[in-house]
Formats: sequence, C-alpha cells, structure tokens
Amino acid sequence: MQLGLTNLVYPGALHTRFHHVLGAMHLMTKAISVIRRKGHEITKEEERAVLVAILLHDIGHGPFSHALEYDIVNKVTHEEISGFFIDRLSEEFGDDLKRALLIFKNKHPKPFLYQLVSSQLDMDRLDYLNRDSFYTGVSEGVIGSDRLIEMLNVHEGHLVIEEKGIYSIEKFIISRRLMYWQVYLHKTVVSAEYMLIHALRRAKELERKGQTVFASPSLGYFLKNEVQKIDFQSNPQILDLFADLDDYDILSAIKVWQKHPDPVLSQLSTRIIHRKLYKIEIAKEPFSEDRIQLEKEIIRKQYPDLTDADLDYFVFSDVLSNSAYFANKQNINILLKNGEIIELSKASDNLNISALAHPVEKYFICYAT
Amino acid sequence: MQLGLTNLVYPGALHTRFHHVLGAMHLMTKAISVIRRKGHEITKEEERAVLVAILLHDIGHGPFSHALEYDIVNKVTHEEISGFFIDRLSEEFGDDLKRALLIFKNKHPKPFLYQLVSSQLDMDRLDYLNRDSFYTGVSEGVIGSDRLIEMLNVHEGHLVIEEKGIYSIEKFIISRRLMYWQVYLHKTVVSAEYMLIHALRRAKELERKGQTVFASPSLGYFLKNEVQKIDFQSNPQILDLFADLDDYDILSAIKVWQKHPDPVLSQLSTRIIHRKLYKIEIAKEPFSEDRIQLEKEIIRKQYPDLTDADLDYFVFSDVLSNSAYFANKQNINILLKNGEIIELSKASDNLNISALAHPVEKYFICYAT
Amino acid sequence: MQLGLTNLVYPGALHTRFHHVLGAMHLMTKAISVIRRKGHEITKEEERAVLVAILLHDIGHGPFSHALEYDIVNKVTHEEISGFFIDRLSEEFGDDLKRALLIFKNKHPKPFLYQLVSSQLDMDRLDYLNRDSFYTGVSEGVIGSDRLIEMLNVHEGHLVIEEKGIYSIEKFIISRRLMYWQVYLHKTVVSAEYMLIHALRRAKELERKGQTVFASPSLGYFLKNEVQKIDFQSNPQILDLFADLDDYDILSAIKVWQKHPDPVLSQLSTRIIHRKLYKIEIAKEPFSEDRIQLEKEIIRKQYPDLTDADLDYFVFSDVLSNSAYFANKQNINILLKNGEIIELSKASDNLNISALAHPVEKYFICYAT
Amino acid sequence: MQLGLTNLVYPGALHTRFHHVLGAMHLMTKAISVIRRKGHEITKEEERAVLVAILLHDIGHGPFSHALEYDIVNKVTHEEISGFFIDRLSEEFGDDLKRALLIFKNKHPKPFLYQLVSSQLDMDRLDYLNRDSFYTGVSEGVIGSDRLIEMLNVHEGHLVIEEKGIYSIEKFIISRRLMYWQVYLHKTVVSAEYMLIHALRRAKELERKGQTVFASPSLGYFLKNEVQKIDFQSNPQILDLFADLDDYDILSAIKVWQKHPDPVLSQLSTRIIHRKLYKIEIAKEPFSEDRIQLEKEIIRKQYPDLTDADLDYFVFSDVLSNSAYFANKQNINILLKNGEIIELSKASDNLNISALAHPVEKYFICYAT
Repeated sequence: MQLGLTNLVYPGALHTRFHHVLGAMHLMTKAISVIRRKGHEITKEEERAVLVAILLHDIGHGPFSHALEYDIVNKVTHEEISGFFIDRLSEEFGDDLKRALLIFKNKHPKPFLYQLVSSQLDMDRLDYLNRDSFYTGVSEGVIGSDRLIEMLNVHEGHLVIEEKGIYSIEKFIISRRLMYWQVYLHKTVVSAEYMLIHALRRAKELERKGQTVFASPSLGYFLKNEVQKIDFQSNPQILDLFADLDDYDILSAIKVWQKHPDPVLSQLSTRIIHRKLYKIEIAKEPFSEDRIQLEKEIIRKQYPDLTDADLDYFVFSDVLSNSAYFANKQNINILLKNGEIIELSKASDNLNISALAHPVEKYFICYAT
Repeated sequence: MQLGLTNLVYPGALHTRFHHVLGAMHLMTKAISVIRRKGHEITKEEERAVLVAILLHDIGHGPFSHALEYDIVNKVTHEEISGFFIDRLSEEFGDDLKRALLIFKNKHPKPFLYQLVSSQLDMDRLDYLNRDSFYTGVSEGVIGSDRLIEMLNVHEGHLVIEEKGIYSIEKFIISRRLMYWQVYLHKTVVSAEYMLIHALRRAKELERKGQTVFASPSLGYFLKNEVQKIDFQSNPQILDLFADLDDYDILSAIKVWQKHPDPVLSQLSTRIIHRKLYKIEIAKEPFSEDRIQLEKEIIRKQYPDLTDADLDYFVFSDVLSNSAYFANKQNINILLKNGEIIELSKASDNLNISALAHPVEKYFICYAT
Repeated sequence: MQLGLTNLVYPGALHTRFHHVLGAMHLMTKAISVIRRKGHEITKEEERAVLVAILLHDIGHGPFSHALEYDIVNKVTHEEISGFFIDRLSEEFGDDLKRALLIFKNKHPKPFLYQLVSSQLDMDRLDYLNRDSFYTGVSEGVIGSDRLIEMLNVHEGHLVIEEKGIYSIEKFIISRRLMYWQVYLHKTVVSAEYMLIHALRRAKELERKGQTVFASPSLGYFLKNEVQKIDFQSNPQILDLFADLDDYDILSAIKVWQKHPDPVLSQLSTRIIHRKLYKIEIAKEPFSEDRIQLEKEIIRKQYPDLTDADLDYFVFSDVLSNSAYFANKQNINILLKNGEIIELSKASDNLNISALAHPVEKYFICYAT
Repeated sequence: MQLGLTNLVYPGALHTRFHHVLGAMHLMTKAISVIRRKGHEITKEEERAVLVAILLHDIGHGPFSHALEYDIVNKVTHEEISGFFIDRLSEEFGDDLKRALLIFKNKHPKPFLYQLVSSQLDMDRLDYLNRDSFYTGVSEGVIGSDRLIEMLNVHEGHLVIEEKGIYSIEKFIISRRLMYWQVYLHKTVVSAEYMLIHALRRAKELERKGQTVFASPSLGYFLKNEVQKIDFQSNPQILDLFADLDDYDILSAIKVWQKHPDPVLSQLSTRIIHRKLYKIEIAKEPFSEDRIQLEKEIIRKQYPDLTDADLDYFVFSDVLSNSAYFANKQNINILLKNGEIIELSKASDNLNISALAHPVEKYFICYAT
C-alpha cells in the first residue's frame, strides 16, 4: 500500500505504489508533450529513459517503508535500495536503464529531466498529492496537476513554471502542507506506525536472543540477520529476499505474533490488529524526561515484570518535521512574461512563501494506556 | 447566472443564483446541526430565520450585478436593494422574515447567526467557492466545506473554528485568493464586463439624448429614468420593475443593439456577442495618462468622427483589488484546545496570514483593437 | 440550452448545444483514432470533414427547437435548416464543408462516416446521453461511451461493434430508454413545452389579427410572417433572422407577455414564468373527446368570455412515442469473434432486444387548473 | 478484499468487505427513513436489529470466499458460517443480535425487514453494484440507488417498488447483468480464481501426504484437517481459527509456495504471483472430453513426470451461470398508482424481463500454456 497504516484513520487509503507509479508515468507523458510543444528537445531515447526513471523511482521502498528502514535494514535508505534494483535491472534491460540511472542520479546533461523525476514539482508529487487526496477523501488536498503541467517550461536546461501558474503553485504548496499534517503525519497514523516499528524491533530482539517468531522466509531472514548496506552489495540474494517482502508478510506475521509468549511482542501486535493504539500527544516543545518517566512508571505498575529496556516499547517520544517549501534546495523558479527568472518566494504577491520554507517541528509522546 | 459573463472564458459556468442560494441553505442546515450538537441553542424560530436570511441574502442582485450597479441604478448597492425586497416580503410573510431581517442587519442578539450569513466563513462563501470551482473546472479551488462546517463552534456568542481546522482554513483562504485572480477577476472576464457596463451606459446616454434603443419594458424604464435610492423607497413599482429584470433582457437587448445606428453602441454590442473583446493589460502600477491617450489616438485614426467623450467607450482603465483575508474586519477566530481564542493570523504555524490581509491591487487598461 | 425547459424539473440542466457539439467532436476524435488503429483508412480530409459534420449537426435547431418547429417556422424541420446553414457556410469555407455535407447527407462512399454522425451509435447520442445524465443528476443514465468507442470497428464500410461490447450496448439501449421517459419526455417537461408552443401560437394569432406583441426584431419577423421552406430558399435574410433567434428572445418576450391585454396570452405566459404549469395526465390509451370536453367546460365556467377556439389553449391532448431500438432502420450490427456479422437483436443472450424495437406510445391530456 | 483477485484485471478493485458493509448500513438508514415517511412503523428495536443484520450479513465470508469454500472448509457455505458467528456474538451482545438473527433467517413477523437484507432489491446489492462499479472503473454499472430507495414502499408487510421506479429497476437489472459478465465472471478473473482454488487444493493434498507447506497457524489448521460443518458446531476454536484467516495469510503463503519442491504447487503459485495465468476459453456448450484430453497431452509432453491426477491441476473445465432476474424466487413487485401489485416481469412496457429470468450458462476450459 502507498500509505502504510493510514487506512486505520482513512479507511479508503488502500491504493498501492503500483497505482502511484503508473499515475506518475502518465503525468510524465503529459509533461514531455508540453515541454516539446514549447520548443525544447527531448529525444526518443530521453523520453524512454525519463519514463523508466519515474516508473522505478520508488522501487526500493519496502512494505511500510519508513518502519522497515529503521531496524529491519539498519537504515539503508530506500533510495540506496532503488539504486541496487536499477543496477540489477540494467544488466537485464541495458541502455534504457543506464540512461534512466543517469537521470535518477542527476548526472544527465539535461537537468530538467532529473527535476521532472525528483524536485519540488516532480511528477511523483503531482501524482501522489491528488491520489492520496482522492483515496483518503481529504478533498481539499486536490492540486491542479493538469494546469501545473501546462505551465511547465525549460529555461537554460532547468525546469521552470510560467508566471501564469503562480496561484496554482501557491495552492500546491499549501495543499502539500495540509496533506502532511492532516494525513501523512496524522497523529493516529504516527502512533500506529511507531508501534509497528517497535513490534518489528522486538521480534528482531527476540530472534537475537534465540527465540523463534513466526515469519515468512524473507521476513525471517531480515529478522535473524543484521543486514547492512555492504551485504546488499556483496550478496545478490539479499536483494531477492528484499524484493519478496511485502505488506502481506508483515501483517500476516503481526497477526500470528498476537499469541507469542513474549508479552511485549504480543501486546504490540494485538493492539495493532485490534486498533487499540497507544495514546499520542503532540506539542511544540520536546516532552521532558520527567514526563516520559512518569508514563513508564504507570506502565510498570500494570506490568511489574517488565525490565527498563522493555518499557521503551510502551512509551516513546520523537519529533516530526515538515517543510512546505524548500527555498534553497531545488527551489521553484518562475519564468516571468518578460523572460526573467525569479525564485518563487520572491515572486508571490504577498503570500509569504519564504515563511513556509522554515521546517515546522512537532514533538510527540506515545504511551500505552 | 451566478458568474455573469465568466462563461466567455469558462464555458461551463452557467449555474444560477438560484442554485447557489439552495446550496448555501443546504450548508446552513448542516452548520445548525453541528452547532446544536456542540451544545449551543438555536431555537426553531431562529433556525427558520437564519435559513430565510441565507435564502434571501442575494435577492438584491440584478443581472450582471456589478455592471448594472454602476449606471443603471446609479450605485444603489445590491445590499440596499436586498433590504427593500426583504421589507416588501415581510409584509407578506410576517415574523419569520422580520427575524431574518434582524439577522441580516446584524441586530440579532446571537451574533453567530449573522456570521453564518455574512462573515469570512459564512455559508455563502462555503457554497460559492466550491460551486464556482466545479462549474468553471478550476478544480484546485475546492475547499473542504464539510470539514470546515464540522469544525464550527460558538464562543461567547460568536462563530469560531476549532484548532483542528486550522490547515483547512489556510487552504480555504488560499483557494479563495486563487479563485479571485483566476476566475472572478480573470482579465478576459474583466474586459467583457467592462464592455457591458459601457454598452449599457451608452444606451442610457442615447435615450437621454432622445434616441430610442430596443429594450424590454423593465430595462427600458431604467434606461430612460435616473432611478435613485429615494425612488425605490417612494415608488413601489420600481422594485417590481427591478424584479422583472434578468439576464435575458440584457442579452436580448445587446443582440438587437448590434444593428443600432450609433456606431459606439453597435460596436460594443457586436464585439460582446461575437466575443471580440477589447485587449486588456494588467500591471502593478496605474497606467499613465499618456498611455491612455496613445490608445485613444490610435482609435481616433480608425474612426475619425468620434468625439473625445466617445473615445471613453473604446479605451478605459481602472483598478482591481482583492484581500484574501481581512485581519481586522470580521476576522476568523480559532478556539484552541485549551479553551483560549486566538485570531487566525496569530494562530498559524508559520503561514504569514497577516501578509494575506493586505489588499492586492492590479491596474488594467482595456482598449479596442 | 440543450434541454429546453427541462430545467423546470431538473434545475441543473442548463448546459447548451455548444457544450454538446464540442463534446461530440471530442468523442469523434477518439472514434477516428480507434478505427484507424484497427486498420481502416480515414484520410486527413475525411477526418476534417467528419469533425465538421458532427460540429454542425445541430446547427439548424432554433431555441426550444421542437416548440418552434410547430408553428413559428411552419414545420420546416431542423434538419432542413441545418442543410441551409451548411450550404451557406460552404460558400465561405469551401471544400471541407462540401465534404461534410456529403457525409451529413449519407452520400459519402464510406458509409461508416455518416454512421458516426447519425445512427443508433453516433457520437451525438454517445455525448448527449452522458451529458444530460450528468446535468440532470439522473446518474443511472450513464453509458460507457469510452468502452463503446473502444469496441467500434468497420466491416465492409459500415460501422459495427465488436462482440465484447454486447453488454455495454444493452446497457446503452436501456439507459437511452430510461432517459427518454425520465427526462426528455418527463410529464412536467411535456406540459411546460406544450404551454410554450401554445403561447407562441397565440402570439402569432394575435399578430395576424392586428394586435401587437412585444418581441425582438427577429422573433417579431417570424410572428408576423408565415415563413415557409421556400422562403428560406428564396430570401437569404430569413436564415440570418433565424440565426439571430435564441432562448433569450423567447424567454424575454414571454416575461413581457405576462401583462399583455389578451387573457389567453397573459395566462399562458404568467404560468410558464411562475411555473404554475397545467396539470398533465398520462395513459396508455388516447383520452376520449368527452374527457377533453369536460375539462374545457370546467375552464369555461371560470372564464365565460372565452371562445371555443380559445379553449384549445387551455386543454390539449397528444401522444408521445419512443423506440428504444430500431431493428430495421440503421440497426446495430455486432462483429463476432469468428468474423461474422449479426444484428444486435439476434446477438443478445436472452435480452429481448427485438421487443424494445416496438415504439412505446403514451397519451397525455394537459389542462389548466 | 471485496472482489478477490479481480484486481488482476481491474487494478483499482482493492476495496474491502468492511467498506461494503458500512455502505450497505448507510443505505439501510436511508431506506428506513423512506419507509417510515410513507407511514409504515419500524420500531427503534427493529431499526437496530435490521442495521445489525446488514452489518453482519457477510461476516461468514472467508478470504477469496468462493475459492476457500470449495476445499478448505469442505463446502460449508458462508451463510452457515455467518450463522455461527452471529450465534457467537449474540452471547455477547444479547437481544439486538437475537432480533437481527430472526431477520437474517426470515423469521421476523415483518418480512420486509428480511427483504431489505436479502432479496433482489436488498441494500447489499444496492451498495455493492455501485461500489464495485466505482472501484473497477466500469462506470456503466452505476445504478440509481438513491432513486430506488426513494421508490421503496411496503405492501401487506412486503417490500415493493412504486410504479414510478420501473425504468430504474430495469436499469438496475441490466446493470447487474453487465457487472456479472464484465467483472464478477470476467474470464481472466475466473482463470485466476480457479488457479487459486487448485493451489489450495494441492497444498491440502500435500499435507495429507505428509509433506509440509508454509502457512500461518490458522491457514495451516484448515490445510491439515478436514473441517466439516459439525466441527464448527462442536469445537468453538475452529470458528476462532476461521476468524483469524484473511487475504494476507493466503497471499503470503502463495508467495512462499513458489519455491516449494512440488512442481504442481510451485507452478500454480508462481503463475498466480507473476500473473502468468492459464489461458481460458468460453463457449456456450460444454467442452468435450476429447478437447480436455488434448490439452492434457500437450502439458504432459512438457512435464513428463506428472501423473494423470496431477494433470487436473493444469487443465480444468467448469460452467458459469448467472440469472439477471429471478421471476419466481423473491421476485420484485411493483406497486401501481391504483394500489394494485404486479410482478415486475408483467409490469414492464415491453422490456422482456421474463427472458432475463432464464439463467445464462457459459462453459470454460482453462489450461496452462
């Protein structure tokens, strides 16, 4: 699924990464046609390559991607794993994939191709914002992707937006901000995903201690072994095992773990399956160590046998962060009618886009009740 | 039609004020139910009154309302005319209408009732933004009206929005801004509507000079007479004549005026009907008198018989203005979870709402080509 | 408007013939591309011609077309008037239009081009059924136009549907039947349109008797003169006058006629404007002369001054008829997987399509109350 | 998932039974309100009971329900299992559920309550036809559920449809027929689901022979044991194990089985996962034994080690059947305006509904290629 456990809050959100990448490819064909129409060359080979690049841009995501990255693959990022997959595929498919890899790594001489795949206005975002808005029912997240694509242009090799599209861009940035806080970082979703992280972490810990937990062979491998980046590179079977992993393995295992003798694993699993999620609080400041200890003491009274380390599975705190706009990195440039180029936050009438460039941070504490 | 000549740019925009007021009533029933559910009393009588008030809130609009207000009724505003209509209706329908009038004029002891009808978050805007977005096809204008209504509450008699709705409010303000510049003040629409104003003004001028122009009886009355506010009050038949006027009278007359012997009236009318609109330019600064004269000279070469006064029908300049948010007047107040009230522009994370409170002004020049 | 007075029942039905013909053109571009993909040649010239033909197929419709045809233009059909318009335009636009006219009159050597414009599966129907379904809100009228077009093919020069599309065709025929009885021949719409016919007939009668009725110049011409088919041919100005006529002229006149001294005209007009429509009853058998007389006597008691002839404006009866499918005329042929061709009513599993080919007739009586 | 493996053909069809039952409950609240408005009593208790009944009507469905029923639970039907679940729940929830059970089993004194849950016009169908139409994108499957519900009435305790709804009913029956052949019995879906049946059957066979196949504990139980209806009744844990089973267990196991040493199981599993489905042919007559043998011989050449019994996993034939309308069982009755009741197939103008009452049968052969 594209949105992990988000369906616990928005039940319609069952769409998949497969849907998303097809959608992003579809938008890419439109963008290519608009850019060509405006007189910029994109060769047949470049077209195939940029379509392959967008098709494969998410291939390194495992199931519940962010959860898995934490422990299961020891912080090897999905971008790195995408790289491994594309390398592998390029042996099979040859030149198209090599060109796609150039674009993917921003080493292609036409930087706008990279920017169509990965930038603040890439086809990835243009697809997922509308798609996620549709399937969650958060209708106000809708962006004008058709209009935004129609306003795309190329200036000195870089992707720009024509001046007429400025209100649509504002709208796009505000919609993205809304989707972040209302969907992707919805507090109940955060609670569920952190519980999943902790369940997987516990399963791995139990395996390390010699206990067995139910798992499909591929999930079992990653629970039993400390797979590092170097292992992906030295042992090609690891990539195969990773490719086998999907949401079904994780959720099927979590269901079985409900009856595991370890109370930590069974508690976490049972609560995820029955949607009895930990309570979560959000604040602008970090939660104090005292507050965290207080919640742990309350848990300990309930379960006196838990060790201090075990308590970390029942109470945890972290920070969420999102920037609506990145003023310095891959900023959005506006092509004025007079031919000048101006960075978005300087172009807007009076909407303070630069204010939106400061990341918003929110702290949370999650605890069993 | 709700949007006057906007269908010359967005052909689907043929929805009517009748659609709009039914929609706004529908949203009002939802808002009433939400507010009651949150423990605030709205009596049966108040419910009827506030529903009548929203049903009638636009009754004073004539066809192509803003165009007519300029000359046809000598700047008597549509709000004043709505008042005359509601007075008239209250003779017939009695108490419900009297209560509605109290709400309409903000003299009701529960100010939130007035705010539901007329404020920055009234049911009027919540309906028309989505409706106009739908019928123009500007999909990104969509606002989350269901969610906004769900977040409504009352605090010390005034309408407020609960904290959870803050991203939806931001989105609402940005969408409204987008709809203003992309639809309501779209430059081609502005050109068409100013041409209509000038056609009506010319027809009136010709009548004043003793020439006859084709018109239905009710349109004819307003062309032949200088109706002032005092006339509406002293002569009840004028309100009847005004009620008879609709888009059909205007457009049917404009069609006939294409063949009027006066070249100014026939030019304006022919160009409106055949959509050969005056060219319009937009700028952040006023257009200089020199520029305006220049355009007039060009016209004069084409039509040497025109007087200086006539040239004002071929070249004109004005200013458009819109505020996305009004920080001081009827501002939007947020009800925090802790029970405090805070004005929206102070509540947002880092979106500079107060910047949006400065009106944006754009100057235009329109001229025949 | 596409649907005349249908908006008195379905208020959203304000879409225009202009919308419809653009939509039909859009579907035609898809159909052309599907047919070419399946290996049948359509030259550039034929493409332009068939697009022009569908764009102009409705050009001869006057406002409230069926109402006008009765009396205003003395039963000159809209197809004949379309012919006059296309003739006129071909003087201006030349060969493309001449080819379009060949297609329009089914004299083109590739009959499937004609069938795309005018047959039981033409782009006209494929557009209007979905469009009217959308704007009336009768959602169940939806047809699978995309799928139907995808299933189009050509066999020996004629348009056919591939076997896989058979359930979609059934659905299409049943939807069309539903739209006829639920929308196009909705009894309240029928009452309104027959009242409009009678109002125009009365206005014409009054003019004939030397009384004046308010009208725009073009409407006035058709009220004052008995225009016949031959007049369209001999006097080119008549086509210009007809082109000038639109819904605005009719509705604007009807509004004014409410105050006409003739009680018949003013009654009819006032009732149309205030939607106080005549009562209508539907039956499977014709209404007896006795019943019609009975209703007339009731009216006469109310208005003793009316003549017998006048009573025909207050009570009238007629028949409505619709065939869901035409088995003999332009029938729909199915291309089986084995290459055979079979007529639709013989191809369906067990849906009795041939039964649907019998016209359904319903009789109505309409009378003032 | 609501539609099993249908997403292999219509990728959007990922909606769940949970979505469906909430939707059906929502329609039930509308139906209750319509029926009450028409003067028929539904008590508070009956309302709760009928809502519970529709909420639970599908609770006995296992994952890929029809596939599982064949072998996994030895033809215990999902209706029987629903009965076991409701029995179990009634211990916990008491009277509401007992009343719901009465309705579910058609033993309630108001038969229309049963008919709202289970008949040709129940809220189940009214929800799933529109929902499946939406998620598959087969837009022509849309039915007018709002209008159909608005036309519901009760006559002598039984559910009837008012005469005005007759075209909507026709449309509903034709849409249902279309959805059956175009979606539910789509030939590629049939091939996939029969392959899944055979994979599960093979896994069970291997377990019976003492080989181990990967499975979650609950799936494992049903593979290792021949669970009969009597076991559900005598051993409450079996219902628990059945409740634990979901799509994740099945698909997660199939993925693992790709590497199972048994070539039959691994072939079937690999082909399902990689969507290399068996070829399927459809015919109006049964496929001959000769044809089936021919396909088996072709397989045998490829895999000479297969036994005759094994070949049944590579080639199979069966019959699909669907009735668009049931004239005798739970037929749809129309309430005429004159108060009479008439069965639908006798009420329709000329659509031959009774022809639609004959089941359509289609034979298929499926074989590996």
